[in-house]
Amino acid sequence: MIKVVSKNQVPTENIEAFKALAAKMVEETVKEDGCIDYALFEDESNPNVLVFVETWESKAHLEAHFQAPHFKLYVPQMGELRTDKELSILKTV
Amino acid sequence: MIKVVSKNQVPTENIEAFKALAAKMVEETVKEDGCIDYALFEDESNPNVLVFVETWESKAHLEAHFQAPHFKLYVPQMGELRTDKELSILKTV
Repeated sequence: MIKVVSKNQVPTENIEAFKALAAKMVEETVKEDGCIDYALFEDESNPNVLVFVETWESKAHLEAHFQAPHFKLYVPQMGELRTDKELSILKTV
Repeated sequence: MIKVVSKNQVPTENIEAFKALAAKMVEETVKEDGCIDYALFEDESNPNVLVFVETWESKAHLEAHFQAPHFKLYVPQMGELRTDKELSILKTV
């Protein structure tokens, strides 16, 4: 099992657009093979911090996700809307 | 639902002791009311970064967790073994 935490800094004026793209990304991604869960969250102390928390059956499933059409479509668009991103790929201990 | 991501910087010489305490913490915490999942992970690019990823039914369940005996017993001990901690409490969007 692999966990992914993708922390995004999003300026206030971009939050709604970012969330709209994220919703489309979630809708497609949860259908993917090996996707256990995948959702967007908001830091309760900072609405400008939007965090994807994901669980994948394996690293191979995660890497297939990086090649999915919806990933290639939406992730660059979300990239335009954020000022910073911190990606953590986590393995079980 | 509430997600918690607790990122810990642990010096190499403390990793095994930290993981041993974390295992006891996991064993007790998963029994708690409202705990959907709770586990320790390792950043695949940095073994000194150990991350709890947690899911709770509600903020109230998480706050009860902070008062649990095993929390009060093990968390300070883990605190002694790490050099830095970043806690994110995340709510659904």
